Amino acid sequence: MLESHVLGHWRGFEGEGRPLPDATTGAEVARIPLSGPDFGEVLGYARQVGGPALRALGFHQRAAILKDLGKFLRGHLDEFHALSTRTGATKRDSTVDVDGGIGVLFVYGGKGARELPERGLLADGGPEQVGKNGTFAVQHVYTPLTGAAVEINAFNFPVWGMLEKFAPAFLAGVPSVVKPASQTAYLTELVVRRIVESGLLPEGALQLVCAPPGDLADHLTGQDLLSVTGSAATAAALRAHPVVAGNAVRFTAEADSLNCSVLGPDARPGTPEFDLYVGQLVTEMTVKAGQKCTAIRRALVPRAVIEDVIGAVTAKLAEIHVGDPADDSVHMGPLASLSQRDEVRRALKTLTGEAQLVHGNPDAFGLSGANAENGGFLPPLLLRADPDARAPHAVEAFGPVSTVLPYDGPAHAVELAARGAGSLAGSVVSHDAAFVSAVGGGLAPWHGRLLLLNRDNAGESTGHGSPLPHTVHGGPGRAGGGEELGGIRAVLHHMQRTALQGSPEVLRAVVSP
Amino acid sequence: MLESHVLGHWRGFEGEGRPLPDATTGAEVARIPLSGPDFGEVLGYARQVGGPALRALGFHQRAAILKDLGKFLRGHLDEFHALSTRTGATKRDSTVDVDGGIGVLFVYGGKGARELPERGLLADGGPEQVGKNGTFAVQHVYTPLTGAAVEINAFNFPVWGMLEKFAPAFLAGVPSVVKPASQTAYLTELVVRRIVESGLLPEGALQLVCAPPGDLADHLTGQDLLSVTGSAATAAALRAHPVVAGNAVRFTAEADSLNCSVLGPDARPGTPEFDLYVGQLVTEMTVKAGQKCTAIRRALVPRAVIEDVIGAVTAKLAEIHVGDPADDSVHMGPLASLSQRDEVRRALKTLTGEAQLVHGNPDAFGLSGANAENGGFLPPLLLRADPDARAPHAVEAFGPVSTVLPYDGPAHAVELAARGAGSLAGSVVSHDAAFVSAVGGGLAPWHGRLLLLNRDNAGESTGHGSPLPHTVHGGPGRAGGGEELGGIRAVLHHMQRTALQGSPEVLRAVVSP
Repeated sequence: MLESHVLGHWRGFEGEGRPLPDATTGAEVARIPLSGPDFGEVLGYARQVGGPALRALGFHQRAAILKDLGKFLRGHLDEFHALSTRTGATKRDSTVDVDGGIGVLFVYGGKGARELPERGLLADGGPEQVGKNGTFAVQHVYTPLTGAAVEINAFNFPVWGMLEKFAPAFLAGVPSVVKPASQTAYLTELVVRRIVESGLLPEGALQLVCAPPGDLADHLTGQDLLSVTGSAATAAALRAHPVVAGNAVRFTAEADSLNCSVLGPDARPGTPEFDLYVGQLVTEMTVKAGQKCTAIRRALVPRAVIEDVIGAVTAKLAEIHVGDPADDSVHMGPLASLSQRDEVRRALKTLTGEAQLVHGNPDAFGLSGANAENGGFLPPLLLRADPDARAPHAVEAFGPVSTVLPYDGPAHAVELAARGAGSLAGSVVSHDAAFVSAVGGGLAPWHGRLLLLNRDNAGESTGHGSPLPHTVHGGPGRAGGGEELGGIRAVLHHMQRTALQGSPEVLRAVVSP
Repeated sequence: MLESHVLGHWRGFEGEGRPLPDATTGAEVARIPLSGPDFGEVLGYARQVGGPALRALGFHQRAAILKDLGKFLRGHLDEFHALSTRTGATKRDSTVDVDGGIGVLFVYGGKGARELPERGLLADGGPEQVGKNGTFAVQHVYTPLTGAAVEINAFNFPVWGMLEKFAPAFLAGVPSVVKPASQTAYLTELVVRRIVESGLLPEGALQLVCAPPGDLADHLTGQDLLSVTGSAATAAALRAHPVVAGNAVRFTAEADSLNCSVLGPDARPGTPEFDLYVGQLVTEMTVKAGQKCTAIRRALVPRAVIEDVIGAVTAKLAEIHVGDPADDSVHMGPLASLSQRDEVRRALKTLTGEAQLVHGNPDAFGLSGANAENGGFLPPLLLRADPDARAPHAVEAFGPVSTVLPYDGPAHAVELAARGAGSLAGSVVSHDAAFVSAVGGGLAPWHGRLLLLNRDNAGESTGHGSPLPHTVHGGPGRAGGGEELGGIRAVLHHMQRTALQGSPEVLRAVVSP
């Protein structure tokens, strides 16, 4: 039975719990309790123990702890990878989640040391003189919120999801209460066990709740933060929760979105960009079996080359081996659970009402070393649709599913992208700077991140689907309207910005006490 | 009958409308319709006409228009002041609202020219190299949201309230839909008439709705913004509106809060700071008859001097003449309406359950040149309470009402301030830098703005209650959890931040096309 780490202790809860099956075999990996701790107590502990302990440290001390924690966790990679396989993750998938998550700790450790002051209040810009004689000025500062950061994570990144929220909160000086999705909570629990064993974190800086959310939201105040990664429906419900809305709880959401990738008209078959586009689309469809909120759902291609794109993508997809993620010859493992598979099948049914399946059959596909009855297996599924079809812009199949749509000219590409109503990530693949510039400005207000891929940067590009700790992660509208990461930007999201007004000497005394 | 300026025209609506009484005499000033325009059409006009027209201009062109508009409106000050009197405003009150509002246009015009690029995308920080070979970098940029800024204003600042929201939206390139509170909408309408007559704004950049909000929120999308100044209840209801929450509409709220002013222990009677504290408290109680969301509601003073403070404040309050705001010898006019007065009376009743009235009698007070039956008159009302009383930290009487509370030591002062659960503005009046520093860091996370007043800066200080265009305005928790103004910071709130990733050349081409 999974335990929660709350109030300074590991705690189990009564009852049989709910079994969490291996994504491939269906065998029970762990059980998760059906009831949890007293959330008022958990939040109180964060506020009264964790917050003061964190705020007693300076930015540089907290940054150093993040680096040390990264080093410590790196010593446990094998163990994390082994358990990660049971979530359906291939070696490549686990690297994204586990190594990627630990990488976030290093980046925030480095940025904290380089880009933040040793201690004291964090200045936002310089002092601005208001009076003519220089006796009265404004200095904006950031101070950590005195509450807790409640971090609700999705099942698809049990390690990265936790650490990408935890690191900026910690660096800001705000304690975290982590609530992983139940399906893969056993991996989050293992990582937190190692974090606790490291003894590196101040008491109360990180609590873990392996249990249903219960009445958690009822206990939030205007000094707390609630960040939610998951479905748009969950995000909207929590945003509208009477206590969250009534107390103006700091809220951010990061929801699945219908991300697009635009192929430039210059990128005809035979160009490096054409190949890059095709390769990237296949990667985005198959990494994590397409269970990535940043995956490409809509491939927007010039009408003239749609057949070429579909031909090239299907040829590559035909080489993808689906099966046991522990097998090195397998490219794509199962979805996280049978219920996730069934949800994708339902979404696919809606999509195929308006789109045509051009590659893959959800009911018949090859499988290496696994039984289709026991795991959430699906093959990569490529669709093609008329750009005016409604479903491809509105229905997300959270699996290895993308739809190719033709566009006519840059303005049309932007307009189609906008029909997704807000996305986490987009990409433009083109070597024509004029085209990239023409669509880039139009796509930007609809996206949190835009990759501008071409032959010059492909070698170093980190790819369409990977938010870096350096880049903001989030997007407007359907994508949840939130923002995470982006280096120090995410640290600031955990702090209150205050305009201090006074004499220059007094302002200095307050900022650097 | 007030009209709305929508879809490029002044439009009236059917029916008798509702009379809007003069705050002093009760005579009808205007009528406001009981039904309004089709909000879907109004927002569509903003998105399809206003947005493109604004985005066709660069930052510097928009900044120049704001300056020209400020100059134009300054030519109509007399007319605005005359009508402002009917809202209950004295000359001093009108200056804050009217001249202050026009001042916001000048500050944003100046800052736009000095602090923003001429045109193109707005860079957020510099490029950050990710790959080792320099072929792949991240550049964060801001682009204007492609929707509308819906601006819901409170009755107390019919001019400033509109212009402080409009100016940053306009500079960002986002069209505004202004919805003034009905009570004083006639003044907003007059100013918009002059704005439209100026011919300075691009078509669709500003629409005015003098009507009930109807189903306005139902038409909002993830590219729109909703900013609300008003009661905490209105703010929470709109934040939780299913369309607002479901579409992740960009939301900000600025709600009345229980702002505090802390007197330092060094500021004994006879010191300049003691006098500054007393003078400021009287000012904050009486400007706009205390109808300011930033007014001091809680005067936190060292226990040893509470009698001195009460004595000095009551002596000054005794000199305040209440009456006809058009009369130059009158210091304080009526509240905006009889219903506002009745609301303050109700709040006062709750307060006096736990607090003692030490100055002023709501049922008996002198009145110059006015009839207490016709206008929303109240005298300044000072209370005193035990710091552990609940009501002074929770109940806001939105009028000339403050409560004096004793504190014991800096940590206690911070703890008491925090009981307000988040405030727009606070002040610390002290000449002891160590004390200011000790409480300043503790107060900051609970405040959007903090004035650190002393003898050195008093001459140039802009005061506890006045948000400057340069300073952020908003506050956590009860204050609404929002942020406005703060110079260019408010412009950014109207834009989407996007991480662009690509080759340095491509990034340059997109940022400066």
